[in-house]
Amino acid sequence: MNSATDEFNPRLWVWGTNASKPRLLHSMVRVKDFDAAIRFYVDGLGMEMLGRFDITTRRSTGVFLGFGDYDAGGVLELAHKWDHEGPYTHGTGYGHIAIGVPDMTATMAKLESMGTEITVRPKALIPGGPAVAFVKDPDGYEIELIQTKRS
Amino acid sequence: MNSATDEFNPRLWVWGTNASKPRLLHSMVRVKDFDAAIRFYVDGLGMEMLGRFDITTRRSTGVFLGFGDYDAGGVLELAHKWDHEGPYTHGTGYGHIAIGVPDMTATMAKLESMGTEITVRPKALIPGGPAVAFVKDPDGYEIELIQTKRS
Repeated sequence: MNSATDEFNPRLWVWGTNASKPRLLHSMVRVKDFDAAIRFYVDGLGMEMLGRFDITTRRSTGVFLGFGDYDAGGVLELAHKWDHEGPYTHGTGYGHIAIGVPDMTATMAKLESMGTEITVRPKALIPGGPAVAFVKDPDGYEIELIQTKRS
Repeated sequence: MNSATDEFNPRLWVWGTNASKPRLLHSMVRVKDFDAAIRFYVDGLGMEMLGRFDITTRRSTGVFLGFGDYDAGGVLELAHKWDHEGPYTHGTGYGHIAIGVPDMTATMAKLESMGTEITVRPKALIPGGPAVAFVKDPDGYEIELIQTKRS
């Protein structure tokens, strides 16, 4: 492969170097106000900062957030272009990321206290299904909250 | 909670009913040609169909794809509105989903044989990092492929 590099940087192989099968690694969304986004995902939803990459040549930063390690469950990348002005636009294609929460009531209370925009309050969308709510993150991305513990 | 339902449907609690901590469950994108999308993700990238939900009252179908079970790594939801006409639009905000592949050469060969649009051929974006490529799925969503096995 012509992609070989001379120098091996283990920090850039956060997903491992010897995986035997493919894996869905992360979803990436671009955010305007990095601090607001991090407050929402870390303070509001309890995600952990797994890693941060500042790429000075591209004047951009990527932050990886998850609820475990890089290889334990889904990961979200927030990308921040240092020089980007104004909000990003949302097309009609991309939907949401879904986060499973054991305690929907506590999560909603926390998000409301932070001033999060709530678009659909918790309810079972389908009879017999889990409670589902929709909120917006600071950049307007839809976040689906799905209860993962039967109340 | 006012979201309680009379009837419990275990099929609708695919992520479990007793999670003790939150989890990133899936990312959802809307697709126009369901069959083409499934060919790309299942035949092209080797994802497995974890579940399919036809919601007749909303005239929509959701399909969940992953490389393991619902709780083993990230999951992608493809949503298909039966009556939707024309392509979905892509804003400037949503970026991509990233899939880790052990064998970049084999994956690229497979995708090329299927006529997949390749936007960035495999190369190490950062010296010492893994080979990275970008392709487009049939709906034009960017898919980042990241090599997860050192060649």
